[in-house]
Amino acid sequence: MKELVARSLKYQAGRVQVLDQYLLPHEETWHHCTSVAQMTSLILTLKVRGAPLIGLAASLLVAYLAEQGHSKTQLSEAIDELEATRPTAVNLMHCMARLRTALQQQDFALAVVTEAERLFEEDCALCDRMATLGAQLVEPSDNILTHCNTGALATAGVGTALGVIHHAARQHADIHIWVDETRPLLQGGRLTAYELARWQIPYTLICDNMAASLMAAGKVDKIFVGADRIAANGDFANKVGTYNLAVLAHYHKIPFYVVAPVTTLDIGCASGAEIPIEQRAESEVTGVSGSFGHCQWAPVQAQVYNPAFDVTPAELITAWVLDTGVYYPQDVAAGVLGTV
Amino acid sequence: MKELVARSLKYQAGRVQVLDQYLLPHEETWHHCTSVAQMTSLILTLKVRGAPLIGLAASLLVAYLAEQGHSKTQLSEAIDELEATRPTAVNLMHCMARLRTALQQQDFALAVVTEAERLFEEDCALCDRMATLGAQLVEPSDNILTHCNTGALATAGVGTALGVIHHAARQHADIHIWVDETRPLLQGGRLTAYELARWQIPYTLICDNMAASLMAAGKVDKIFVGADRIAANGDFANKVGTYNLAVLAHYHKIPFYVVAPVTTLDIGCASGAEIPIEQRAESEVTGVSGSFGHCQWAPVQAQVYNPAFDVTPAELITAWVLDTGVYYPQDVAAGVLGTV
Repeated sequence: MKELVARSLKYQAGRVQVLDQYLLPHEETWHHCTSVAQMTSLILTLKVRGAPLIGLAASLLVAYLAEQGHSKTQLSEAIDELEATRPTAVNLMHCMARLRTALQQQDFALAVVTEAERLFEEDCALCDRMATLGAQLVEPSDNILTHCNTGALATAGVGTALGVIHHAARQHADIHIWVDETRPLLQGGRLTAYELARWQIPYTLICDNMAASLMAAGKVDKIFVGADRIAANGDFANKVGTYNLAVLAHYHKIPFYVVAPVTTLDIGCASGAEIPIEQRAESEVTGVSGSFGHCQWAPVQAQVYNPAFDVTPAELITAWVLDTGVYYPQDVAAGVLGTV
Repeated sequence: MKELVARSLKYQAGRVQVLDQYLLPHEETWHHCTSVAQMTSLILTLKVRGAPLIGLAASLLVAYLAEQGHSKTQLSEAIDELEATRPTAVNLMHCMARLRTALQQQDFALAVVTEAERLFEEDCALCDRMATLGAQLVEPSDNILTHCNTGALATAGVGTALGVIHHAARQHADIHIWVDETRPLLQGGRLTAYELARWQIPYTLICDNMAASLMAAGKVDKIFVGADRIAANGDFANKVGTYNLAVLAHYHKIPFYVVAPVTTLDIGCASGAEIPIEQRAESEVTGVSGSFGHCQWAPVQAQVYNPAFDVTPAELITAWVLDTGVYYPQDVAAGVLGTV
């Protein structure tokens, strides 16, 4: 496999390595990953996270195993096992489907490696196209609100929603970003803040429940978020709290954009109601845990509800920024997502 | 002064004592408070919190100082200093105004003590009346969402919004409460969870950004919140995140009730736009801190916006549950809050 280097995933000198996003921003630690069990654990614990990145990290691992001489059956099992790690994001399933097809070829090992390389490089190009298209929606001095982390850490390229912000900031030095901290796992407070600081883009961190009063005060001009799965009708699943923002944007008449590569589309899914929503551990809500330390503040016996994602219906979306173009409600209602 | 005992404030054996709400639910520690400087510090650090309770704790301290023989001038200065500790909640200002009037009497020490006792006892009665009126709005099997902490810890009685829930649960054993954790200071996750557990009322803790998807799924029947200040037109300030809930409730057609004693009314304030909003420390948003430990996850140089409160406009409110009655939008639009 050729050398492939992204911000949080690389294949170099025969080693698949992933940046530990659980330890960010306090520590930059890379894990050398050699097995399905290890990658599964890295994904489940969110050390490897971001819908596009999960798919690519799993793909590079399968390619590595193919190079190591694993049999067709072993690779098929690896693909199945990796695909089952997280149920909501569809990019992983898309990548695994592509590798499964490659596995049918005569020289399956070479085919799998080539396909994994292609997936990685395609993702970089997808990010760049989304960022370029999305940045055209941004105006000078815009205050942009974003949720979770959708930048270079979450993809092989510059990111999805945060990629748009990256490109827009190159064109308009005076934009400012409101960063939702994104409870429970704080991907905004930890990762988006970290990436924006590295990019020297001015931002202000808020708790998720503060966005509404900012909107009421006219301090939010646009909202850009990523997606884990987009259904045929335009509904999409994304990090929990996204639907909350969409309702607030609708009420305050603020444009609300979802940014995702076509690999996030699941045309087999008619609407958001069919997207499975992953429920996660109670301990994520009763406290926090990371390289920054561990705290539990809630009573130990507290009952908890902890969906990792929520679903935003198409009617709340101003436009879908895909790598193939910017689509508006009339396009999506006419079924354009089935043809892109 | 007579003995006065509430859940988090008491005057016993000549000592004003306050329960440290910063240390809850992990530790129950009482502070013996003897000076204005000490009480100011306890309020600023939220060891003493809850709009009604702050006013009462400050009042008992002034009464204690009167009993200790402080001069009229000293007491007047104490009242001024305590009143300035937190700018948003009006109950404190209401209590201090009552003591200031008492201070004008010939036997000012006795008058101040009597007035402080009266304020404490009135608050218990106010809570009971609000809880009784509000509970009539609750139906069997209701799923009720609440924000922050508005229970017996925040008042001298059973609470405001949480008092309603307390009384409703005595009538309908099958109600269930969704508890917003209430970032940044986690009054929901720490204090409301703790109080509901003590009362054996079934609850489920959520992150603030999860409420929207619960509403979309039809899992929230009613919302009850407290208030720090209600303007003449019905707008009110409350813990940040309240306005977010009000917008969500409006969109999902869910009844949204604010519960507060008449001491929370500020008729001199024409609308919510006139209510000052306290901005608090950046460290509250970049991490968490308490008896449960200390963590900072955001980059140290992160810019932060941290308003303690937000303002909910009257048009989003289903009804105002005061101790004097339940008022609906047409009453409030007609100016009833100026006459109660």
